[in-house]
Amino acid sequence: MIRAVSDSDHAAIWAILEPVIRAGETLAVPRDLNRDDALALWLSPERTVRVLEEDGAVLGIFYIRANQSGGGRHVANAGYVTAQHATGRGVARRMCAASLDLARELSFSAMQYNLVISTNSRAVRLWQTMGFAIVGTLPKAFVHPEAGPVDAFVMHRLL
Amino acid sequence: MIRAVSDSDHAAIWAILEPVIRAGETLAVPRDLNRDDALALWLSPERTVRVLEEDGAVLGIFYIRANQSGGGRHVANAGYVTAQHATGRGVARRMCAASLDLARELSFSAMQYNLVISTNSRAVRLWQTMGFAIVGTLPKAFVHPEAGPVDAFVMHRLL
Repeated sequence: MIRAVSDSDHAAIWAILEPVIRAGETLAVPRDLNRDDALALWLSPERTVRVLEEDGAVLGIFYIRANQSGGGRHVANAGYVTAQHATGRGVARRMCAASLDLARELSFSAMQYNLVISTNSRAVRLWQTMGFAIVGTLPKAFVHPEAGPVDAFVMHRLL
Repeated sequence: MIRAVSDSDHAAIWAILEPVIRAGETLAVPRDLNRDDALALWLSPERTVRVLEEDGAVLGIFYIRANQSGGGRHVANAGYVTAQHATGRGVARRMCAASLDLARELSFSAMQYNLVISTNSRAVRLWQTMGFAIVGTLPKAFVHPEAGPVDAFVMHRLL
């Protein structure tokens, strides 16, 4: 089930975000970001946020928002985080599909990911199967804690 | 002369921004953005802002900021606006050069422009002469008031 966030989800959301933020391998946020700042970022007013719940447990969170304003406001941006204990179960795929539906509902006509880390090959492949194309390669745009500076991709699809 | 902004520059800055915002051809901001919101956006705390002054008149404004945070914080982003009455005099070129110097001073190691409108061919060529490469093409990412949906470029250079 994909649903909106309520205040009672904050602990579950932080439990999902914290290990991914601390790992620093996929999200471009400070690895030492604290709970309040992380929740403020993820639940900021310009984002429309949903969680994926299964058997009463929150297994993932995603947002969509306008990637630009003015003449660029028809393109959505989105981000997804799956609970580490729930990877490999199609959570990200279901969230991506839901985000595409939500973006259409909100009258966006395209979706763009600004910084897909090239070492995150599982995500790159998944977004490709969901209809996204790599439309740009940003040289050494991300400093991976293990691999060092690695490329990142801009990925895009029409809705 | 390239210098920091003071409160007494606000009228000059708005005089530069307003016609460019109203035209809606190059900047992804709402065409009806008002003065206070435009100044708040341009002078927001995460931006380092400079103006180009010549013979006591402000002819251009630019900002630089981190394009991403965390593992992406080494890449700067910048934006430039030249006074409409001062185009063709090398103002944008001088601002670009100054922004690259400033980015190096602030320890950035690359500069990325996220949305260079393809119809703004003068800017595209200028950035290319300043060492930027087109690293991505965003299909129909900008709705131009005359041309309709047009592509935009992601442009990048190392510092």
